[in-house]
Amino acid sequence: MAYPALFLKKHEDKRLRQGHPWVFSNEIDTKRSPLETFGAGDVVVVNDSGGKALGLAYLNPSALICARLLTRKPNITIGEKFFKTRLAQALALRQRLFERPFYRLVFGESDGLPGLVIDRYDSVLSVQITTAGMEVYKQLLVKVLVDLLQPAAILLKNDTSQRQLENLSLEPELVHGALPEKLLIEENNARFLINVAEGQKTGWFYDHRCSRAQFAGWAKGLKVLDLFSYAGAWGITAAVAGASEVTCVDSSDTALALAAESAALNGVQENMQFVRSDVFDYLKQAREQNLHFDAVVLDPPALIKRKKDYKAGYEAYRRLNHLALQVLSSEGLLVSASCSHHLSRADLHDILRSSARHIDRHLVFFASGGQGPDHPILPAMPETEYLKTFFCAVSGRI
Amino acid sequence: MAYPALFLKKHEDKRLRQGHPWVFSNEIDTKRSPLETFGAGDVVVVNDSGGKALGLAYLNPSALICARLLTRKPNITIGEKFFKTRLAQALALRQRLFERPFYRLVFGESDGLPGLVIDRYDSVLSVQITTAGMEVYKQLLVKVLVDLLQPAAILLKNDTSQRQLENLSLEPELVHGALPEKLLIEENNARFLINVAEGQKTGWFYDHRCSRAQFAGWAKGLKVLDLFSYAGAWGITAAVAGASEVTCVDSSDTALALAAESAALNGVQENMQFVRSDVFDYLKQAREQNLHFDAVVLDPPALIKRKKDYKAGYEAYRRLNHLALQVLSSEGLLVSASCSHHLSRADLHDILRSSARHIDRHLVFFASGGQGPDHPILPAMPETEYLKTFFCAVSGRI
Repeated sequence: MAYPALFLKKHEDKRLRQGHPWVFSNEIDTKRSPLETFGAGDVVVVNDSGGKALGLAYLNPSALICARLLTRKPNITIGEKFFKTRLAQALALRQRLFERPFYRLVFGESDGLPGLVIDRYDSVLSVQITTAGMEVYKQLLVKVLVDLLQPAAILLKNDTSQRQLENLSLEPELVHGALPEKLLIEENNARFLINVAEGQKTGWFYDHRCSRAQFAGWAKGLKVLDLFSYAGAWGITAAVAGASEVTCVDSSDTALALAAESAALNGVQENMQFVRSDVFDYLKQAREQNLHFDAVVLDPPALIKRKKDYKAGYEAYRRLNHLALQVLSSEGLLVSASCSHHLSRADLHDILRSSARHIDRHLVFFASGGQGPDHPILPAMPETEYLKTFFCAVSGRI
Repeated sequence: MAYPALFLKKHEDKRLRQGHPWVFSNEIDTKRSPLETFGAGDVVVVNDSGGKALGLAYLNPSALICARLLTRKPNITIGEKFFKTRLAQALALRQRLFERPFYRLVFGESDGLPGLVIDRYDSVLSVQITTAGMEVYKQLLVKVLVDLLQPAAILLKNDTSQRQLENLSLEPELVHGALPEKLLIEENNARFLINVAEGQKTGWFYDHRCSRAQFAGWAKGLKVLDLFSYAGAWGITAAVAGASEVTCVDSSDTALALAAESAALNGVQENMQFVRSDVFDYLKQAREQNLHFDAVVLDPPALIKRKKDYKAGYEAYRRLNHLALQVLSSEGLLVSASCSHHLSRADLHDILRSSARHIDRHLVFFASGGQGPDHPILPAMPETEYLKTFFCAVSGRI
């Protein structure tokens, strides 16, 4: 199939050649390839200024990220075979890395499928399409997924704000099968109830799986505080691993109710309590009441969603970590995470260093982690790396 | 005990206040505290220019890193109680993190003991003292270690080049008990024979333990190439986990003989072969012969020992990674590590990115790791962070 040509300005091919798959609108030679001749979602051959083809991309003429590379092979067709190959490859990698069918099956550009995220809960697939370019292939994707996995249900969540920027509907669509109200999933040695239709993001955060498994290995006998617990993933994992007492704090009643159900399911409800509260308020109160925990897990939602929120978000992370250190017992463990891409690993590192110095405690990182193997990182694309977790051992002044 | 005062120049207290424990010679106010009045190993009270005490440090007046902070409490005595407390705390952290007595017990500044590294092989302790300041406490350390752990043997390895800079002897000393020629140690699910007296560094590299465990989880059925295998830690771990075929390549006959013995000990000798060769030569030959492996482990010794070796070292890492990618099968795993502090994580990240682009293969990081929990990182001290490992899934052009 012959796709129309898109030409880049001189030297604007550099990022693509280094492996990054995005083209920004100001990098396009709009005299040679006027953007108004393209529709949202059109596939184009991306050419450097010398006319050398770099691959195929889909386009959104009105978006800042104007084109996203689908393949570096300029002569193939973007159709069923393309999606079959890509999805099969994504599946093969997960099957190589995981024993059970609970994982992020597709992680956008890292799997060569920009604008697409699919979480797999055994026979249920929760899909996020975030671009007009990928939306074009919605029906085809569903067909290929049904052929490949014979799922019981496929839900298009359609609820990320990015869809608005791309002029896409925010209505969820159940495009295949039937969806139970709650799903039972497995992670590490625990089982969890999740609500795919109503939950945050695709319904569950698989990304911390490996860090939670690590934490479980050290949680036996500990009194644990799980902050921003959401559906209880850290807390329940710790309780199943033998934590003596786990307190989950979250501002959402629905999330805590689900967490309590999952706790019962794993037989650890007796060791757990669930507190509905703003986390800042909870920590201030705990400090006043002189409460202490052997281990604190601080895993807030993204506090810096856009670059312009950096300053306020940094300050929020700083305050949270500072407060968390103050409710830690004399030899305590702090697990501190951030899923904000805009807060770098170095930022969180420095927040922990300075907070510990500020209260004159000795703090070392005895482990650190990031997103699990089902969220692979494309090394040329820093945007695919967002999660960082530090495991800190904290003692008194030394 | 009243220690003599060392005064810093104005503003030179900043790094110390941020948590870093070193004082460089040019930061000292030598008019107020002339360095020639101190002997190598003397303990001093470190004061800022305003005379505020920051803690106690030991000194080496002729070294560039002139003083290393031992404590932030300026009024204690550096004696038996001090070492007892520090070692007990280091031990408590390891016992919290490991089930079996095989670990780095002390990791220098991270454990508040600058100039000291101790590896524990159950009842045998392998000790590296790297500074004149710590050498002063040699006898005391041995006494405290004997009281704390009742070891069968304590060996002072004394073989790091840093000792030369500090004018210390390079003769090993068996200061307690008797040392068997070979020791049996445990790591993850395997057992290994090591030669503490003759081996590299303290005799074994515990630092990769967690990354090796991760790799084992994915190694079943794979044809694995273990480059710079040393005593076979990666290869044997993979074989025990079910790798179908493992080739260990190293330039040392002694290391390979030990690896072969360990392989037999774990009952995996039939699946393993040991090749004595320069790794560059091996890889070039393998490429010529069109050999391919499902997984390649590339874990070279430090190729950048000093800052001035950066350029040549970077190039060596680049060539090695480039060659390793070329002997990987069509859907292969590359585990690429570096223990050079001077090669940053970002450097290795970029070497992998550019090498994959160069041969037009799709490469993602599905996991990354660093030094294990017995090598904690002091966040204010970048020098304590040296190990980085990337787990790459590599496929063809996409």
